[in-house]
Amino acid sequence: MTELETAMGMIIDVFARYAGGEGDPQSLTKGELRVLMEKEPGFLQNGKDKDAVDKMMRDLDANGDAEVDFNEFVVFVAALTSACHKYFVQAGPK
Amino acid sequence: MTELETAMGMIIDVFARYAGGEGDPQSLTKGELRVLMEKEPGFLQNGKDKDAVDKMMRDLDANGDAEVDFNEFVVFVAALTSACHKYFVQAGPK
Repeated sequence: MTELETAMGMIIDVFARYAGGEGDPQSLTKGELRVLMEKEPGFLQNGKDKDAVDKMMRDLDANGDAEVDFNEFVVFVAALTSACHKYFVQAGPK
Repeated sequence: MTELETAMGMIIDVFARYAGGEGDPQSLTKGELRVLMEKEPGFLQNGKDKDAVDKMMRDLDANGDAEVDFNEFVVFVAALTSACHKYFVQAGPK
C-alpha cells in the first residue's frame, strides 16, 4: 500500500472502531462521539466537556439526523487536516 | 500521536513531497500531479496516460489556477476515502 492508501485506511479504521459501539455501526451516536473525543485528545476538544461534545455533534451532523455518518466524519477530518497544513506552512521556513 | 493524527500527518506529508518538486512548493503543477499519479498507482489512474492526468487536473483544480493546492487535494482525498468506505461497507458482512 502507498502512504496515501494507508492514511485513508487509518481514517476508515478509526471511524469503524468508534461507530461500532452502539446503534448503527455505520454512524457515530453522541455517546460514541464522546468516546472518540476522549480517546483522540490530541486535536479534538475534551470529550469530558459536555458542551464541547454537544457543539461538535452540531458541527459534524450536517444532515441533522443526530448521528455522524462517515461522509460527515471525513469532511471534518479534511477540514482539520487543511487547518493543520495551514498552521505548518505558516510556522515553517519561508 | 493518535491514529487519526498520524493519518492526517501522512496526507500532509504526501502532498508536500510531490508539491515540492517545481514551482510553488505549496501546490501541485500538472507535472507534479503526473509524478504523484505514477508513484501512487494503487487507487489513482495511471500517470502515464496523458488524458488521465489532464482529466484529474481539471477535476482537482477547483479554483481554475492550473495548480492543485492543499485544500483542493484534501477535498479529493476525502471524496476518495468516502468512496472506499462505501465500497468496504457494501462488500463487508451485513
